[in-house]
Amino acid sequence: MLHAVTPCPVVVHPDCVRHDPAAEIWLGVRMPGTEVAARVTVLEAALTGAGHPVLPARAHDDAVLREVHGDALVGFLRTAWEGWVAAGYPDLGPDRVVPYLFPHPEMSPPYARTPTALHARTGGFCYDTMTLLGPGSWEAIRGAVDAALTAVDVVQAGAPLAYALTRPPGHHATREAYGGSCYLNNAAVAAQALRHAGHERVAIVDLDAHHGNGTQAIFYERPDVLYASLHVDPGAGWFPHFVGFADETGTGAGTGANRNVPLAPGTADPGWLAGVRACAAAVSAHGASALVVSLGVDAAADDPESPLQVTRDGYAAAGRLLAELALPTVAVQEGGYHLPTLGDLVTATLHAMG
Amino acid sequence: MLHAVTPCPVVVHPDCVRHDPAAEIWLGVRMPGTEVAARVTVLEAALTGAGHPVLPARAHDDAVLREVHGDALVGFLRTAWEGWVAAGYPDLGPDRVVPYLFPHPEMSPPYARTPTALHARTGGFCYDTMTLLGPGSWEAIRGAVDAALTAVDVVQAGAPLAYALTRPPGHHATREAYGGSCYLNNAAVAAQALRHAGHERVAIVDLDAHHGNGTQAIFYERPDVLYASLHVDPGAGWFPHFVGFADETGTGAGTGANRNVPLAPGTADPGWLAGVRACAAAVSAHGASALVVSLGVDAAADDPESPLQVTRDGYAAAGRLLAELALPTVAVQEGGYHLPTLGDLVTATLHAMG
Repeated sequence: MLHAVTPCPVVVHPDCVRHDPAAEIWLGVRMPGTEVAARVTVLEAALTGAGHPVLPARAHDDAVLREVHGDALVGFLRTAWEGWVAAGYPDLGPDRVVPYLFPHPEMSPPYARTPTALHARTGGFCYDTMTLLGPGSWEAIRGAVDAALTAVDVVQAGAPLAYALTRPPGHHATREAYGGSCYLNNAAVAAQALRHAGHERVAIVDLDAHHGNGTQAIFYERPDVLYASLHVDPGAGWFPHFVGFADETGTGAGTGANRNVPLAPGTADPGWLAGVRACAAAVSAHGASALVVSLGVDAAADDPESPLQVTRDGYAAAGRLLAELALPTVAVQEGGYHLPTLGDLVTATLHAMG
Repeated sequence: MLHAVTPCPVVVHPDCVRHDPAAEIWLGVRMPGTEVAARVTVLEAALTGAGHPVLPARAHDDAVLREVHGDALVGFLRTAWEGWVAAGYPDLGPDRVVPYLFPHPEMSPPYARTPTALHARTGGFCYDTMTLLGPGSWEAIRGAVDAALTAVDVVQAGAPLAYALTRPPGHHATREAYGGSCYLNNAAVAAQALRHAGHERVAIVDLDAHHGNGTQAIFYERPDVLYASLHVDPGAGWFPHFVGFADETGTGAGTGANRNVPLAPGTADPGWLAGVRACAAAVSAHGASALVVSLGVDAAADDPESPLQVTRDGYAAAGRLLAELALPTVAVQEGGYHLPTLGDLVTATLHAMG
């Protein structure tokens, strides 16, 4: 069956390639990372090649961003690299901002001070050793936020679907902390912008192979923004380990506005698409008038970062299920690390959503 | 002036050399550590050479240890290495237990699960990336506790002073967390054992160059055990960064039973000895009937781990000030990393205390 392809505006910020974390520190070992700048190049080439129009991200002020993230985190991310260089840490060997000390509650009791040394403060903002900052990181991080906000503008201007080529990704970033290769939560910013644009109820569906603990945390107490995610079961030993379980349904006013569908490692199209249907049903039940899709394609079988076994056809089927919701939709890029197939997976999903 | 040297029983556990952390991870870079097994060899040789009798540590059950540390931490330390090997992490490159993910409150909210994967649980117990566990670590850690408890026994049997060659050191270990090259808090265990031995009020004086955040945390709410420490000012950017300030005086029933004397980097004998006097005065005011000395000698000018400039004579003078308290005293080894002078510094201090 042939589908006519509806052009989907693709929002790109040129700074998103400037983030080069250079490595990840995994259990004390410096390893090459998979969240590389070439992801942007590959995705842009694939989407352009498929005939989608590329729009440059427009600069937005911090108003919406500051409703999603604390000033302290934003300030840290903006200044950490220059502070690192000024402090001379590179002479000690490291060449990127990475924490070594973390404020365990017994290390940092209520009476504790904020450390004066940048290298000791970093662990208060960054919850892992895999999410490095270097030259250009801030510009890419903030550029991705502008891409997400511009995609919202495009949808508000009448497009049924827009895609933000957000890199670095965002769904592991909480209000006050970063980690999991994410720094600022592009999807959460997009959802908040849609709220400001007049949508009383917004939904986020997270297709990434990993639970978006950051997005969940940001909206966990809010009834207006539903977070629905399908992902590899953290109880099977997968990131983010601590959260992402099915009984996490929101709290307080947000009770019922969080839906997690953890999937066993090895889950392929049938099980994964059942999860997509469950998330789509939650969106309908929520009564959302706008949708954000956290479009991670690392659930694909070839991806090095997850044990899920979804095919290209599976992603396309997910796109159709989301399209059936018939909501104005902003898709933001999350994970997806297999460069040879990354572009095709995203393109296939967007085609089906269009 | 010549001093006759009073023999000081030196308690040694043979397993304390078995801990070989192999490295520290400092800002993402693997570096050689300074808390090395040769510290034990150097210290034992110096003390034996000075004529002090060496006693083997005797095995003690966990009763006192479990009053100072949580079961979860003790259980983790006992089993982490074998679990690490069983999980196959060494095949990924790392060869020691070291965390990469830390339970920031927004990553690990109240509803969070305990991670099933050992590599994700580790950061809940270890607050930095510098404190590695490997083969033999648990035996050394537990051996050091037995050494401290045996030194208490020796003092209870009538010796005015006993020294436990505790390695790894302990004063950065809190009730539920380890870090700063420390795993279990030998000084805190000794103080608790002295309480059980009938001393209603016990004091700990910490001469190590760094604030003993773990010891402070363990006793911060208790009126019966005074913690008094002089150390390089954490506000000047030194470990433990978060705590160790002068206005931390205890809380609740423990108010007034904590005394910190932070010292500027570069402080030499006069300023340092004024701090020792302040701590000794706090011990007297507390009405302690027994003393634990956290004997770190890394405040010495040659030490690579601190910017204090204390001399051998300074340490000897500190020993005399503590001897003037005329209390049954258990000295436990903390830091001190300059192998050429380490033995002489400890020997000089103990001579003066004897």
